[in-house]
Amino acid sequence: MDKERKFSAIAVVFGSCGDRYVLEGYSPKVSFAEMLERAKKVPDLTGIELIGGWHLHRDNAQEIVKQVADAGLQVSMILPELWSSAKWGLGSFAANDEKVRREAVDEVKQAMDLAARIECNAVCPWLGQDGYDYCFQIDYLKAWDRLIKGLRECADYLPTVKIAVEYKIKEPRTHCFVGTVGKAILLAKEVNRKNIGVTLDIGHALEAYENMAESVALLQQFGHLLFHLHLNDNYRLWDDDMIVGSVHTIELLELLYWLDKIGYDGWYSLDMFPYRENGQKAATEAIEWIKGLFRILDKIGPENIEKVIQQGDATEAMKLLRQGLLPPK
Amino acid sequence: MDKERKFSAIAVVFGSCGDRYVLEGYSPKVSFAEMLERAKKVPDLTGIELIGGWHLHRDNAQEIVKQVADAGLQVSMILPELWSSAKWGLGSFAANDEKVRREAVDEVKQAMDLAARIECNAVCPWLGQDGYDYCFQIDYLKAWDRLIKGLRECADYLPTVKIAVEYKIKEPRTHCFVGTVGKAILLAKEVNRKNIGVTLDIGHALEAYENMAESVALLQQFGHLLFHLHLNDNYRLWDDDMIVGSVHTIELLELLYWLDKIGYDGWYSLDMFPYRENGQKAATEAIEWIKGLFRILDKIGPENIEKVIQQGDATEAMKLLRQGLLPPK
Amino acid sequence: MDKERKFSAIAVVFGSCGDRYVLEGYSPKVSFAEMLERAKKVPDLTGIELIGGWHLHRDNAQEIVKQVADAGLQVSMILPELWSSAKWGLGSFAANDEKVRREAVDEVKQAMDLAARIECNAVCPWLGQDGYDYCFQIDYLKAWDRLIKGLRECADYLPTVKIAVEYKIKEPRTHCFVGTVGKAILLAKEVNRKNIGVTLDIGHALEAYENMAESVALLQQFGHLLFHLHLNDNYRLWDDDMIVGSVHTIELLELLYWLDKIGYDGWYSLDMFPYRENGQKAATEAIEWIKGLFRILDKIGPENIEKVIQQGDATEAMKLLRQGLLPPK
Amino acid sequence: MDKERKFSAIAVVFGSCGDRYVLEGYSPKVSFAEMLERAKKVPDLTGIELIGGWHLHRDNAQEIVKQVADAGLQVSMILPELWSSAKWGLGSFAANDEKVRREAVDEVKQAMDLAARIECNAVCPWLGQDGYDYCFQIDYLKAWDRLIKGLRECADYLPTVKIAVEYKIKEPRTHCFVGTVGKAILLAKEVNRKNIGVTLDIGHALEAYENMAESVALLQQFGHLLFHLHLNDNYRLWDDDMIVGSVHTIELLELLYWLDKIGYDGWYSLDMFPYRENGQKAATEAIEWIKGLFRILDKIGPENIEKVIQQGDATEAMKLLRQGLLPPK
Repeated sequence: MDKERKFSAIAVVFGSCGDRYVLEGYSPKVSFAEMLERAKKVPDLTGIELIGGWHLHRDNAQEIVKQVADAGLQVSMILPELWSSAKWGLGSFAANDEKVRREAVDEVKQAMDLAARIECNAVCPWLGQDGYDYCFQIDYLKAWDRLIKGLRECADYLPTVKIAVEYKIKEPRTHCFVGTVGKAILLAKEVNRKNIGVTLDIGHALEAYENMAESVALLQQFGHLLFHLHLNDNYRLWDDDMIVGSVHTIELLELLYWLDKIGYDGWYSLDMFPYRENGQKAATEAIEWIKGLFRILDKIGPENIEKVIQQGDATEAMKLLRQGLLPPK
Repeated sequence: MDKERKFSAIAVVFGSCGDRYVLEGYSPKVSFAEMLERAKKVPDLTGIELIGGWHLHRDNAQEIVKQVADAGLQVSMILPELWSSAKWGLGSFAANDEKVRREAVDEVKQAMDLAARIECNAVCPWLGQDGYDYCFQIDYLKAWDRLIKGLRECADYLPTVKIAVEYKIKEPRTHCFVGTVGKAILLAKEVNRKNIGVTLDIGHALEAYENMAESVALLQQFGHLLFHLHLNDNYRLWDDDMIVGSVHTIELLELLYWLDKIGYDGWYSLDMFPYRENGQKAATEAIEWIKGLFRILDKIGPENIEKVIQQGDATEAMKLLRQGLLPPK
Repeated sequence: MDKERKFSAIAVVFGSCGDRYVLEGYSPKVSFAEMLERAKKVPDLTGIELIGGWHLHRDNAQEIVKQVADAGLQVSMILPELWSSAKWGLGSFAANDEKVRREAVDEVKQAMDLAARIECNAVCPWLGQDGYDYCFQIDYLKAWDRLIKGLRECADYLPTVKIAVEYKIKEPRTHCFVGTVGKAILLAKEVNRKNIGVTLDIGHALEAYENMAESVALLQQFGHLLFHLHLNDNYRLWDDDMIVGSVHTIELLELLYWLDKIGYDGWYSLDMFPYRENGQKAATEAIEWIKGLFRILDKIGPENIEKVIQQGDATEAMKLLRQGLLPPK
Repeated sequence: MDKERKFSAIAVVFGSCGDRYVLEGYSPKVSFAEMLERAKKVPDLTGIELIGGWHLHRDNAQEIVKQVADAGLQVSMILPELWSSAKWGLGSFAANDEKVRREAVDEVKQAMDLAARIECNAVCPWLGQDGYDYCFQIDYLKAWDRLIKGLRECADYLPTVKIAVEYKIKEPRTHCFVGTVGKAILLAKEVNRKNIGVTLDIGHALEAYENMAESVALLQQFGHLLFHLHLNDNYRLWDDDMIVGSVHTIELLELLYWLDKIGYDGWYSLDMFPYRENGQKAATEAIEWIKGLFRILDKIGPENIEKVIQQGDATEAMKLLRQGLLPPK
């Protein structure tokens, strides 16, 4: 029997995705109600992530939560909007402009308020615009100082709401400050509050040449910091945001094994951009892949896996995986 | 005295740039007239590239050409619109849908008509949507066959208009068919018409781990195929479309040397996305950098450069470059 | 029942592998006889690739062939030694030094002689040292000219022996001339002899951001040029030469499907560097993985695969693969 | 007048470099005495880094130091040998084998003893073999635990000797534990001793898609951890260990500016692999490039640079750099 795991998706998985060439989107625009319609048709999906200040704001919170509940879902996470308006172009938490920094901190606080009110109790700020593109464009010391202070202010604002900072090495800036698992942990430790942790987007980890399982282990080791998980897939060199399982198999298996090993019991949340695909089908496949891969791990058996890990012999690991994944003669 | 070189820019360098997060653009939308206003303030800029079916179409051609001339510019190239509408999402020349393929070929033919009428006599089709994202999604044989046939049809349509196919390894698809200098040359040779050649976008070359100078040499060697040049800069792993000269110096010097060596006398055309920068200032800097780098080459002297190239000793090359680029004690 | 496929390995898979830090090798040196001992224990392995001028030369050919036959193997390919001596440091076929170029051509001819004599009738020159590291170090036009002329001379020397040129984008040079599938095909077409084709090393394809299946298709399309296949795996950014199947699953499945689709009936030859692993076990696993993956394809059924390919819908492809690869609920 | 900066080189820059193909080396083997002969001919070179247990051991320390002094040099750093013997193949500090871990710790302690005795007072352990190649091969939690404990033991052993841990993302393992600036800082903070810091190898930073200047700033911000500097250059995707200045210009300028800004007064030490070049000439060029680039910074003026940094406008930064680097019309 499959272990119960909680699956979620960012609402925009069910919307229209654009890129810098097709700004209008590869498919027609979709209302939030329609996104929910599609989401509720995805088997095993029980959570939905909303973008604060976009899908959800002070005045519609109650109504939105009701809509979500009517679709049989719950809000799994609120993402403060810190990356999709021109005003964040030169940064949010680390912007040179004090007024922009203030707005960014307020954006997160408002998301925290909402998160508390609707009992999701977690926000996921992604500081994608905080970084730089060119050399000699940034005072790195000041920037990191601002990141730390801004996040600390947020953490202190509502200690009951978790702040799961998402890291990413590049895009939309050519270099983002909070870029790697190491930097994300450093940041969390420096902010030094109980409600500060990390969102691991596995595509971002791959893009930074991280092994996803090692990143999970590090987040565990340096203070149980894995607060949230974003899932997708890519070809390692860019955040392609593809369907989970479409590129990586072995590394994904190892990730899933380690999530169980450290006792992760949070959401398995899809953060994909199905530009040219049907979002509902993409989400359905993603979840089916994850469940199928967990079944492979069950079939192999955690004790056997643990044994090859402790042994450290790659050929034995390959043999075990092969016997679990591929049909015998 | 600086040798006369022709500088150009794609019109959108002076417009508003968006990306997949900030679809509205990082700066306010701009009219074509305003783009020209900005372009004409850029010293040494004499050409402008227009997007066929967007800036320029059958009904406004005469008027547009007049506007461009009034701004002291000429149309340096027409780019058929094959990448910015949702209808090309699953390909243009190589799409499975025959109707879409037909529209794509027609789009290029119309651009060719325009190019002939306004005496620019060249079009630059970039087949960015022709590729794939996922495995088991494409019949590669059919796709390449369609590319070849479609381009041949275009080439035969108006043999006096040059078709400078632009290659790029990825984006918007995770894999684009015409991805590298080798594939671009292969394609041109297989189409096998005198008016088929290649646009080298140096950022695309860098992204494909090409040495830009070698790519120029290959295009020369396999049939004088370097029809056009797009300039920008990036950090090698993505088409960041930054200001020319902002990242690469030595490799750019070598490129410029080789452009002279093979006798390139076409446009030096800027294809940049100054998302957060002033486009006019970005274009001005780009041109000043190119001119400054050519002055470094003049200072070193082509005969000295040729000597170290033939010698093949990297330390001698480094010494010569250093003496040309850096101040003495 | 498994279709019969011919498996082979380069002899050094069973030897000691070193790198630039551990030049002595990670395991004790091994005699050729011992390599054969290990090879013969690998189930389904029937071929072995030898390095000309190293394992095999004019004076020991008969004896070596006998040793190989006694081990129940045949020589599947001869690799002319063009990369492991200091004398090739600045190039072999494209070296500035005429004497070195002559030696390189002779090395290939000798390998061809041997190949004819022992009835393997194929050589695989890898021009890894032909390239450059620094800018302003090479006259690209001359270099490519030399490559073409040298290979043409070899091709004409013994038209009955196939020359399967192996491409690789970098290492040992930071840039190798024959770097991508596009350049390899261009080279073969320019040499323009019936016995000139290409060796596809799938790790080299991955390192160049190629999709392996597309590379196979292109080699087919542009003249049935896929003469030989080298198998291994890596993390996309370097030629890690790992055990086949250890990193890529989906892309590998697509590659195998396309090899069947174009009717490839040559060797499936392992080119791996098991630095810290037992070579015999590494080779065994590699072959078992390939066979297991082919069984997955059989299970899914080629007609179903062809259908999703022609359909072009990634979610359908994902579903089909999932149902073939992962266990149902 | 040039500011006084201390230049150093690893001894092997003057030796013979091999790689996994040319294990014998691209040039003839060289004695340590000959390396010193070459080193002393390099203008401005005053330091030399030695490999503990290789160039330098308990029994020859006094003699070696004398030899070095006779060449007009001093020992700038001792590198414990933790990467060039087969015994470290599966790790040193993090190896599963307790005996190997013990030897690794002892190797560093012996290097520390030597460092104290010869008054260089610093060692640079590079844990290149501590990592993994395959999935399911490592217990990441145990591995990181061992790294921390082992380094803490070393730090406590001789608190007067600095331990400057060098990070690198891959090679010789496909994944090294101490891979990025973030992980290196985390490790140092977790070891939590005053004599633990970091060696920044700028090629390793580039390979990990770090901006070198930001890495310097972070090391400063999180506890003044920049203990040592290794210099070379590469094409971003691999540790090519090329001559400093041969690829990067702008980013190198920014790095040098930030080294001054944070008051770095340690060694500028060359860690290059001039496989096919004359090591003495390579080292000479590297130092001349660094000095020349510093002169460019002087010419521009630190106050002007600081102004554009605070301004954050990339076009202004580009203009300032251009005026400093390129000749006027």
